[in-house]
Amino acid sequence: MLVVMQQGATEEQIQNVIDRLVELDFDVHRSTGVMHTVLGGVGGRADFDLAIFEVMEGVKEAHRIISPYKLASRVFRPAGTTVAIRDVAIGGQQIVVMAGPAVAESRDQIEECAAVVSKAGAKILRGGTSPLLRDAADRHGLLVIAEVEDLTQVPLVSEFADILMVASRNMQNFSLLCELGKQSKPVLLKRGMAATIEELLLSAERILAGGNYNVILCERGIRTFETYTAATMDISAIPVVKKLSHLPIIADPSHGTGRRDKVPAMARAAVAAGADGLLIEVHPDPDHAQSDGAQSLRPEQFAELMEQLRIIAPAVGRTL
Amino acid sequence: MLVVMQQGATEEQIQNVIDRLVELDFDVHRSTGVMHTVLGGVGGRADFDLAIFEVMEGVKEAHRIISPYKLASRVFRPAGTTVAIRDVAIGGQQIVVMAGPAVAESRDQIEECAAVVSKAGAKILRGGTSPLLRDAADRHGLLVIAEVEDLTQVPLVSEFADILMVASRNMQNFSLLCELGKQSKPVLLKRGMAATIEELLLSAERILAGGNYNVILCERGIRTFETYTAATMDISAIPVVKKLSHLPIIADPSHGTGRRDKVPAMARAAVAAGADGLLIEVHPDPDHAQSDGAQSLRPEQFAELMEQLRIIAPAVGRTL
Amino acid sequence: MLVVMQQGATEEQIQNVIDRLVELDFDVHRSTGVMHTVLGGVGGRADFDLAIFEVMEGVKEAHRIISPYKLASRVFRPAGTTVAIRDVAIGGQQIVVMAGPAVAESRDQIEECAAVVSKAGAKILRGGTSPLLRDAADRHGLLVIAEVEDLTQVPLVSEFADILMVASRNMQNFSLLCELGKQSKPVLLKRGMAATIEELLLSAERILAGGNYNVILCERGIRTFETYTAATMDISAIPVVKKLSHLPIIADPSHGTGRRDKVPAMARAAVAAGADGLLIEVHPDPDHAQSDGAQSLRPEQFAELMEQLRIIAPAVGRTL
Amino acid sequence: MLVVMQQGATEEQIQNVIDRLVELDFDVHRSTGVMHTVLGGVGGRADFDLAIFEVMEGVKEAHRIISPYKLASRVFRPAGTTVAIRDVAIGGQQIVVMAGPAVAESRDQIEECAAVVSKAGAKILRGGTSPLLRDAADRHGLLVIAEVEDLTQVPLVSEFADILMVASRNMQNFSLLCELGKQSKPVLLKRGMAATIEELLLSAERILAGGNYNVILCERGIRTFETYTAATMDISAIPVVKKLSHLPIIADPSHGTGRRDKVPAMARAAVAAGADGLLIEVHPDPDHAQSDGAQSLRPEQFAELMEQLRIIAPAVGRTL
Repeated sequence: MLVVMQQGATEEQIQNVIDRLVELDFDVHRSTGVMHTVLGGVGGRADFDLAIFEVMEGVKEAHRIISPYKLASRVFRPAGTTVAIRDVAIGGQQIVVMAGPAVAESRDQIEECAAVVSKAGAKILRGGTSPLLRDAADRHGLLVIAEVEDLTQVPLVSEFADILMVASRNMQNFSLLCELGKQSKPVLLKRGMAATIEELLLSAERILAGGNYNVILCERGIRTFETYTAATMDISAIPVVKKLSHLPIIADPSHGTGRRDKVPAMARAAVAAGADGLLIEVHPDPDHAQSDGAQSLRPEQFAELMEQLRIIAPAVGRTL
Repeated sequence: MLVVMQQGATEEQIQNVIDRLVELDFDVHRSTGVMHTVLGGVGGRADFDLAIFEVMEGVKEAHRIISPYKLASRVFRPAGTTVAIRDVAIGGQQIVVMAGPAVAESRDQIEECAAVVSKAGAKILRGGTSPLLRDAADRHGLLVIAEVEDLTQVPLVSEFADILMVASRNMQNFSLLCELGKQSKPVLLKRGMAATIEELLLSAERILAGGNYNVILCERGIRTFETYTAATMDISAIPVVKKLSHLPIIADPSHGTGRRDKVPAMARAAVAAGADGLLIEVHPDPDHAQSDGAQSLRPEQFAELMEQLRIIAPAVGRTL
Repeated sequence: MLVVMQQGATEEQIQNVIDRLVELDFDVHRSTGVMHTVLGGVGGRADFDLAIFEVMEGVKEAHRIISPYKLASRVFRPAGTTVAIRDVAIGGQQIVVMAGPAVAESRDQIEECAAVVSKAGAKILRGGTSPLLRDAADRHGLLVIAEVEDLTQVPLVSEFADILMVASRNMQNFSLLCELGKQSKPVLLKRGMAATIEELLLSAERILAGGNYNVILCERGIRTFETYTAATMDISAIPVVKKLSHLPIIADPSHGTGRRDKVPAMARAAVAAGADGLLIEVHPDPDHAQSDGAQSLRPEQFAELMEQLRIIAPAVGRTL
Repeated sequence: MLVVMQQGATEEQIQNVIDRLVELDFDVHRSTGVMHTVLGGVGGRADFDLAIFEVMEGVKEAHRIISPYKLASRVFRPAGTTVAIRDVAIGGQQIVVMAGPAVAESRDQIEECAAVVSKAGAKILRGGTSPLLRDAADRHGLLVIAEVEDLTQVPLVSEFADILMVASRNMQNFSLLCELGKQSKPVLLKRGMAATIEELLLSAERILAGGNYNVILCERGIRTFETYTAATMDISAIPVVKKLSHLPIIADPSHGTGRRDKVPAMARAAVAAGADGLLIEVHPDPDHAQSDGAQSLRPEQFAELMEQLRIIAPAVGRTL
């Protein structure tokens, strides 16, 4: 904790800040410079609001030195986390692709999707929240990822899914995150459209704090002024997260672009930037999909993309 | 529904778009220009995804003509909606101020807050989700607004609160919105930090669609590249919402700035821009508040602000 | 200058940072905490790049303690700057309104504009870069503000204008800023659409550094994801600049909204938030204006707005 | 040109819009629907402001059908443009890498840089605006790219450089763009930090309109709320530009990230997404660089990156 006082801050103002630091159990070190006095706080509580200091009289700026997240930080597990489920390891040497329709519409459709994505090399089947996913996945040697939309859905979805997915708009649904912290199944946590990387890690921290260490992060685009695409994929978040955290991170180019013709380029970019995997929407007939048709790849496009990714993977020391 | 074809689009591409429009029950009008063919669709389903057309071969752009929200649009109630609770009318001639602490910390604290804000002219008491609010409010002739964090909290909070508040991070918690649509109590819906004005109205539409027409919107700042303030208050959203929708809109300068010393300026700005009310955090001792201390006004600051607002209100034909 | 080392940073990494600080003429104070070592640098050069430290091995974060701007900071002139031109003082007790068309189209048009805005209470005439402005302004007791688009235009525009305006897209045209620093005429510097408040002040610093202390800042909207308006006016920049800098700040709601029907609300908001003045586009026949017609007020709308502003001004201790 | 009238728009309002369209030389087609009247305008002037219609009474929305840029659009040259300079072709089958220091600091430094980047496979030398670049480039079989900061610098820089570069902050410096349109040397135009893809193409249009068709676009990051990186590289702009325009597009991961350790990941991502080339800062001793040291690669990092790019290129059907 560092508080930089304004030039000309009075002794009383400085003392007020010191008192406030002491109230929060910090040991205070004072350094008086020619222009600015700097107060360093050591120890102290972690759960305070930095802005408290920023609005005090005579304060120029305040900085938190210790990251607001601990369990999610790289320091906690320097070697990195691998989320292993049966024979699939997310965060390991192999890039893991999760694919399927936005929604499992029928037994036939999901069966066809499972066949297609499995053949092309995907390891995990997606398809909304439907139990239909389980059988289709099993028949094709796939795992299942399914969305939990609120805390009441956790028990049911946990019964049939291997990974529980938190959508972007729920990244700060704290009731849901708290519930997921109590589960043993891995959680895929998508970055919110207005969330900084730090906020993504803070949301992950809530799940880890509950005891569930199997968290996979997912970059899926942030909201910017550019409206040509549905969102702007922050590809640089991939190397940034790799530095800040030990958790695996994958990318979702389907939601990240909103348009089928941009998905392959962004999937390749994410892998080239070091992503641990991809989450991609694939539909046998996207023009008539119930949901997300415009951003779903056709089966042949998906197969072609997987071939391109196989070429790229060795550039980052990976396989697919 | 308008689809503009690219220059040089083939007859087959045009026909494919026509077929797709017909599948969605549109009557199609074709207009062949020198450079572009334009297809207009009339009637048709409302629940389709515009992007479906944007990714079709030969399509340049597609526009939805009819707003994706109906019940929330100004056309639906040209005269505007007034949300009336006992003797308070939000959206009427009087500007309504809701004030109090972030959290009701104790019986004494909330009692002191209620006394302070009531005396200065506030009509509604805020203070998190605590039932403690009720007694304090009643003693000072105030109504109560309280937050519902997820759908499971709705029954309990409805018991003691007059207005149910949906926080910014829950603006697209559809399970919660659906539940609130079934209630009779008014709902205050805060704009998400990454939500466009249209998305705010679409979330309101979900509540209205359930039959609850007492919805109050709230601008509380959006996320931008400027980090000096906690968020950038989009004051222009106030006149924009007034044009697009019949629903009342208020502003929350406490969350919108995150800093006590910026709250009065933004509260004045919101009223001057035509807001129907304000939601402001006030705490008897903000330096020791459990939450949001940096953005809570001191009682004397709040009283001074109310005096300034009384000067401004007539400029927009209102009273306070 | 503060450098926070990562947890577990090696002694060699720490020494490398110390060496780099010494190279830049800093006196270094080392503070070894349980988790983090913090290095404070005092004295030292001002013109270094903070990122140099951020990318060094073992560094967690680096903070510049002393503002990167000096002449523009509030500390430099705590009482604030008033830019006085003849009988007009910008930054004083009176709110100063600058108004007129986007472009002076003809002698008649600019004459009519000057008459209209002068009668309603404006003090300064705007209208692009045309020398036609001078005569019209003089006849109606107005000053002239005119744009300089690049450094080659400075001599000519200086001949007839009282204030030289730098448009938003030129905020970081350093050749132009450098030239303006050598002038004696006041400069109005508009914030760029992607510029932080700090960057605005850094651009002002370049003019001040040349010896021209008569700089007026202008908030005109930043680019955000909200596309309903042409830009999102950052009204909170007004109180923020007032705290950080001694320079006057005005607002331009015409470019800030891009739409005539939103201009009055935002003009009122800016004044209520403490702006020192306004820059507003007014045209006798906006539907047929050569430029910016959609955002130009009609004469009667401008007169009505001025009446509203006269009601609001006393709320912030000002007159109009 | 399409104007959608509001539900309930009066016949007079509709007629006013028709009159305005006719004034702008449009042939008007009226389509009266159950809910909305739509007016289509064909022919007509290109240089009108869409907002003029958006603010008219009774108008719901207005859409420009024909792109505001013509020469820069893909339709103009469906096969794409290749900018050829001696034996280098930008936009062709080979990915072209431009590399070197931010600034040519001395004859020795630029000589060393040229040797390093040439050996690793770069084709073009960068290094600010210094004529020192020419000799070093020639000795190592490289071309030269150099920045022009304002219109007065064009003649001098044209004497020694093969490509003239417009920095991000000058993307809308129209005086400069106009001057560059008159040159025969190729121009590299960087996207502004707040510029949409459409605005980038509109700036390119200004150069093309002057008769200089050798324009290369460059994505270098846009400004978003995420501050961990200096900018957020919009990698999706690469496939988007490829669809909208015939001009080549390269990426600048040095300015796009601001940090050396993120440059390789983003360089790989850009190539995987289909970029025609890269612009990368390389310095023999970045810790002591005069400028941009934190974002400059060390020689061995650059060589390693080039090896990775050679693996990726075939995935997009290219060579390096």
